Formats: sequence, C-alpha cells, structure tokens
Amino acid sequence: MSVQAISWSPGGAVRIVDQRVLPEALVHRDLETIDDAATAIRTLQVRGAPLIGIAAAMGLVAGLRDARRSGRDPFLGRLRQAAACLADTRPTAVNLRWALARMLDVAERTPGEAAVVWERLRVEATAIWEEDRAMCRRIGEAGLPLVPDGANVLTHCNAGALATGGIGTALAPIYLAHEAGRRVHVFVDETRPVLQGARLTAWELTEAGVPCTLLADGAAGTLLRDARVDLVFVGADRIAANGDFANKVGTYPLAVLARHHGVPFYCCAPSSTVDPATADGEAIPIEARPADEVKSIAGRAIAPSAVAAFNPAFDVTPARYVTAFITERGLVHPPFGGGP
Amino acid sequence: MSVQAISWSPGGAVRIVDQRVLPEALVHRDLETIDDAATAIRTLQVRGAPLIGIAAAMGLVAGLRDARRSGRDPFLGRLRQAAACLADTRPTAVNLRWALARMLDVAERTPGEAAVVWERLRVEATAIWEEDRAMCRRIGEAGLPLVPDGANVLTHCNAGALATGGIGTALAPIYLAHEAGRRVHVFVDETRPVLQGARLTAWELTEAGVPCTLLADGAAGTLLRDARVDLVFVGADRIAANGDFANKVGTYPLAVLARHHGVPFYCCAPSSTVDPATADGEAIPIEARPADEVKSIAGRAIAPSAVAAFNPAFDVTPARYVTAFITERGLVHPPFGGGP
Repeated sequence: MSVQAISWSPGGAVRIVDQRVLPEALVHRDLETIDDAATAIRTLQVRGAPLIGIAAAMGLVAGLRDARRSGRDPFLGRLRQAAACLADTRPTAVNLRWALARMLDVAERTPGEAAVVWERLRVEATAIWEEDRAMCRRIGEAGLPLVPDGANVLTHCNAGALATGGIGTALAPIYLAHEAGRRVHVFVDETRPVLQGARLTAWELTEAGVPCTLLADGAAGTLLRDARVDLVFVGADRIAANGDFANKVGTYPLAVLARHHGVPFYCCAPSSTVDPATADGEAIPIEARPADEVKSIAGRAIAPSAVAAFNPAFDVTPARYVTAFITERGLVHPPFGGGP
Repeated sequence: MSVQAISWSPGGAVRIVDQRVLPEALVHRDLETIDDAATAIRTLQVRGAPLIGIAAAMGLVAGLRDARRSGRDPFLGRLRQAAACLADTRPTAVNLRWALARMLDVAERTPGEAAVVWERLRVEATAIWEEDRAMCRRIGEAGLPLVPDGANVLTHCNAGALATGGIGTALAPIYLAHEAGRRVHVFVDETRPVLQGARLTAWELTEAGVPCTLLADGAAGTLLRDARVDLVFVGADRIAANGDFANKVGTYPLAVLARHHGVPFYCCAPSSTVDPATADGEAIPIEARPADEVKSIAGRAIAPSAVAAFNPAFDVTPARYVTAFITERGLVHPPFGGGP
C-alpha cells in the first residue's frame, strides 16, 4: 500500500527511489558502487535515519561484489575503507554508524574466504532491511491505539515509507489506522528548507490514499491554537540516553507549541535510534547544511546572493517535551539503558 | 539609506517597487488606474499594511485624474466606487480601510467642483504618505533604546521600508541603530509561503548595509533555545482594542517561543493599525490565500497536485505574549482606547 523506498536490483545493486525529484517524477536509481551509495546518501537521494542505515549496509554489499574474488585480508581492508567512506556522509543519524558497525562486526566474526564473508554480509544487510520493515510495523501497532477514528495528526518532515525499509516510523500508526478503516487525516508541515513534508510525506500519503493537508511550517501554530490537531507524530535521527532527541529542524518549535497547547507529542523511532553513548542532547552533533538550500529553490534565487544563511539540518528537542517514545517495544520513556 | 517603496511618478501615477520580482530584479511600476492599484494590492506587488493604505489613497488620486473634469456628484460617485473596489482587495489589514475612509471623508467635507475635491485628495494622500514616513521614524526612535550595540534581533516577514512609506516599522529601530553606528545584526525568518523575509527583508537590509542572516522559519527555535537572539521585532496588520494582533502567519509560533525562552517580543506598528472597533483577536478576519502559494514555488510544483493546502495569510497573537507595542507614541500597552 505504501511505497517501497529500497530493494535489491536483479543485478545485485541497491535500487532506490531518488527522493530529490519527487513529487515531479518517480525515478528509481541503481547504486552499483560504494561511491554511488555515498553520493546518494550525501546528496539526499536517500534520506531518513533508518533508510540511510539500510542503504549503507546494502551499499557495502553491492559495492564489494567484485572484491569478493580477492583474498580475505584485502577484502576486509576494502570493507573497512568503504565503511569509513559511507560513515562520513552524514554526521547526525546514529543508524548509519550502527548499521556499518554491525556489518563490520559480522565480517570480522565470519571465518573463510572473501566470497563467504561477502555472502554473509549480503544476508546481514538483507536482515537489517527486513528487521527495519518489521520494526516499522511494530511501531505502527504500538502507536495504533493513539489514533482513533476521525483523528487529526500533525507531522513534520518525512518519517514515512520513504525514510525506512517499511511503512515508516511516524507514519506507521497512520498507515495502520487507515488500513483498519479508521478515518485519519494528516496535517503535513512542508518542512523547509528541503521540503520533505511537501515533496515526500504529502506524496506518499496521497499515493496510499490517506487524506492530508499541506501547510507552511509557520501555520502549524494556528492549527494547534485552534485545537484542530489531536496529536503530533515525529521521527528522530538520534535519541540520547536521557531522551533528548535530534530530528529535522522545526521539530523543537513544534514540541514547544504542542506542549503550550496540551497536545500530545510522540517521537516514533526504532530503538536502534537510541544512542546510549550520547548522554544528552548537548552531545548530539548537528549537521550544518549549505546556505544555498535556504537561499534558492529549484535553482532559482529567493534571497540576495550576498546574504548569509543559518541552516542547521536538525534541532534538539529535550526529553521533557515528549509525551512518549513509540518504538518497536511499545510506548517507552527515558532514561534509556546504557546512559550515565 | 533604505529603499523608497512608493512615490508619485512625474505624470501623477503611483510609482511602486514591484515586490514580486525582488530580489532578482528591482522593477518600478507606475499604477495609472484604479484597476492597476487594485491589482497591485491584490497580487502583492505592494504589500505591508501601512504601504497598502498609502497605495490605496494615492491610487484613488491617480485613478481619478480624468474624473476631475466631470461634475462634483459624478466624481464623488466614482470615488466611492473606486474606494469600494480597493477596499475589496485584501481583508485583514485595517490601514487599507482606514486610509480609504479618510479619503472619502475629506472628499465629502470639501466643497466645490470635482477639480477642487481632487486637488484636496491629492494633498490628503500625500499627507497620509508623509505622516507614515514620520511615524516610521518615531517608531524607530521609540524602539532605538531597546537595540544596544551588538544586539541580535530576530524578525519575521517584512515590516521594513518595503512595507511602509518610510523606514519601516519593525525594521525602523534597526535602521536607526545602524545609522547611530551601533553594531546590530538581524536574523531574518524567510517567512513561507511568500518568502517576504528572504526576498524583501534580507534584500532591503543588505542594500542598507545592515548585517543579516537568513533562516528557514523552523530554525528560529534553535536560535532562541541557544540564547542567540536578544529581542524579537515584528509588525502588525491589525491590532485589536485588547492588544491581540494579526500579523504574517508564523508570528504566533515565534511569540510562544520567545515567551518560552524569556526573550522580549515587541510588536511595532503605527497607531493607525489599532482598530478600536475590533474587540479582540477572535474578531479579526484572517485572509485565506490560494493553495498554490504553498504547493509551488516560482512556478515549479513542490507537492503532489492532488493534495489540499491550509494557507492562512496571517495568524493572531494574543496580547499577553507582547512585551510592549512600539508605536509613534512610544512604548504602549493594551487595552487601547475605544475598546469595550
């Protein structure tokens, strides 16, 4: 029912939906090499914390197809090099580093020649993808009771099928409510500067037949003040041990407004998004994206060329604003295990 | 130092800066007829509550140049018709109706033939413009003590020279601080969907040599949370008797965030923006703009064509969020005279 954001191509490449050209066109692209995969992640052809992790893991397998004919040590060397290259693409999402670490660990623990290790990696990448798909569904099931018939849900950015290997995180309970025949309507923040809400969330909800309404980010305050929103679902790029979490810039203002108006605010994410090694929000590195993302749209300048721009990709929402975290384990509350 | 948004052309038309094409081009346009003026206001060639009032008053004069050779009664009839047409262009800004009512009142109280009445209207329209210019400066002087050397000011939309007949409202204290040699830096919300912050505020500040940094509306929360903003200046399209005010959508979220972080939040507007006949914010009509403003940018679709959009042009900020109103009379607090 929802779109499939990633898969294996018949030739063993990573087949992705190029998210830069949505909603104007649905273009699939095959990532054949490590470089293809790194470029796809860096340039936001694939984005969304869970999907980045899956794409990196699958990208290692696709990109090392040739190397499996080399010896074990050269293979492991190239694997480590490739993983380092992929880890460098985006700094905030923890799933990326988590998936790469898991792949490296499996490779090192698998005895035998390169071909055997490579085969084991292919199984592992597929497992990461399938686990994510299952996790999305379990997040959806955990969130489903929160979405009654007639619910109006507000969401920000894209934490949907296009951000994961399955039916999404923040959108998962919505898809399941829709599937169950409940009338659910989604208010979609357009999410400047990259417009993931307008381009991706509105697109995938419309494709799936879920009624939705697009708005400029600044209009969410009116909806919350007018009591037209029953609950807020957002995703997360990294959750610290204490429950502070990083998500697309604009999430924190929404959390403040939701709290100000007594509207429940849920953060939906697989538990792999929790980073026990990050004590709190202060320790989460926030990626600064190019000024041009703010200063132009679709190649057209919307601001004077001389002006500076402040363009953090994410912001940090302290744990106290979160009604509950919805993970594959159900509704959970911080502190999460492993923290200080 | 700052740009001049409106003037008389040598031939007696209303010469405006076409604000739709900024910052790509600086295009002046002469409004010769009532229809030209109405179209310019409706299509946002001129915008900003004070400037709309001035443009409407001057537009009446330019558009009735020929009618002054008719009899008094036909002239007054055409004047009333023209004023009704101009009043219909935008529903929220009170300055528009205020300026038109003032022009009608003057016309009716001026004895004599059409040519005499028209001449009196020309003087009155020029007075409305010059009073606004003086008011901007007095607003600037009233706000100047709030802008110390090294201040970081956050603003939303455009309440600058491009919104008024002078140096603006919200930007007036900034221009005067800059003129006085104080180092002042402005954070400019881009202000989706029409991008008045990116296209107009960033442009006019850059033209005037005032350092500024552009940001997506959703990034303001990060600045406020990180204590990088000393104060917020915004304009107003209508202020109710109790101090609730309408301004560009996105103002209310900013007010909530400013209060949440203890950052002073000032609303800068001439006292003609106060509408004693509007008891409170609930009574302010909010203009719903076309969905296409949200769904496309520069003619390019950024959302699926089937999706609905919620696009209120303004939101209402309750008086309790406002540290003070800055008018030409100084810092004032509600309730304003004439309310219930």
